[in-house]
Amino acid sequence: MSANKAARIGEEVWKTRIDKVNAELVTLTYGSIVAQLCKDMEGDYLEVNKQLEKMGYNIGLRLIEDFLAKTNMGKCANFRETAETISKIGFKVFLNITPTVTNWTTDGKQFSLIFEENPLADFVELPDDGRAQNELWYSNLLCGVLRGSLEMVQMQVDAHFVNDVLRGNEVTEMRVTLVRIIDDELPPGED
Amino acid sequence: MSANKAARIGEEVWKTRIDKVNAELVTLTYGSIVAQLCKDMEGDYLEVNKQLEKMGYNIGLRLIEDFLAKTNMGKCANFRETAETISKIGFKVFLNITPTVTNWTTDGKQFSLIFEENPLADFVELPDDGRAQNELWYSNLLCGVLRGSLEMVQMQVDAHFVNDVLRGNEVTEMRVTLVRIIDDELPPGED
Repeated sequence: MSANKAARIGEEVWKTRIDKVNAELVTLTYGSIVAQLCKDMEGDYLEVNKQLEKMGYNIGLRLIEDFLAKTNMGKCANFRETAETISKIGFKVFLNITPTVTNWTTDGKQFSLIFEENPLADFVELPDDGRAQNELWYSNLLCGVLRGSLEMVQMQVDAHFVNDVLRGNEVTEMRVTLVRIIDDELPPGED
Repeated sequence: MSANKAARIGEEVWKTRIDKVNAELVTLTYGSIVAQLCKDMEGDYLEVNKQLEKMGYNIGLRLIEDFLAKTNMGKCANFRETAETISKIGFKVFLNITPTVTNWTTDGKQFSLIFEENPLADFVELPDDGRAQNELWYSNLLCGVLRGSLEMVQMQVDAHFVNDVLRGNEVTEMRVTLVRIIDDELPPGED
């Protein structure tokens, strides 16, 4: 499947088959989650990152069903096609954005998603305590959503942010690596 | 302003001025918040209700700005108009639903919102521990959102659920009471 075809499918599904809510509500609700976790973890941002990723993982395990049902997607031929599907169909139908797929390694197992927009982080400012800028990956839930949903379609991936405009970086960039194709048919459990 | 006019404004704003995201993502994300709080509060559902309401309150304090900016709403003439505005413009532009306004007290200070749909609770089941059904108000965040946003427009209200289909009740019903009009101009603080 070409990138163009993926974009057409994403647009079509977004327009016709998605129940929608206000993005601002999501921004504020997500902000509440992060604030609550920062409080619970007493400012241990590395632990907050871990919890956000885990919450995202559990969301991904369930979100993929909705995704497959709405898009009628079959199996991707290779990891490049998976990347285009994530960007132009996955992110499109859930957040109405299409992050750019780029920075492939030559073995085709690792790419970046560059987020020109990120509804989770609109108008957000990190705590100004000299640590959050170096330690907190605010949108880490998204990494977990990718890991959880891809695990359900037999791909074990690692996903983590390497840049974030909230930290003062020029772009927001997530690195996604295919760890292995899962052969067995045992259902994945919680972390 | 009539109920019909409110409905037209809500529809128009929703269609033309709202950035939207997938409702399913919100359902699952909200579910994660509730699950996290149930864990944090070690199953003390009354405390979970309180925390959800407080999170909603803080969201409401900020959401109202977006609401006023997008709708160009002026002051409501009375509490009945406020109720129609909450249902047909507020809930419409944030969750794309319009709960029914009903069960007014004769003094015009108390009404119910009946939720035929509730994106926060789609396909949700409460924990089957014999307590959640009697103690947890799953969607309690919404009560806080109402309290916070109305406080910013000089109305102190009490909002709480009295029925929830998740508990096996026939409808999901929130009771909203006008406590007082806030006269002073001091900005409200956090709880």
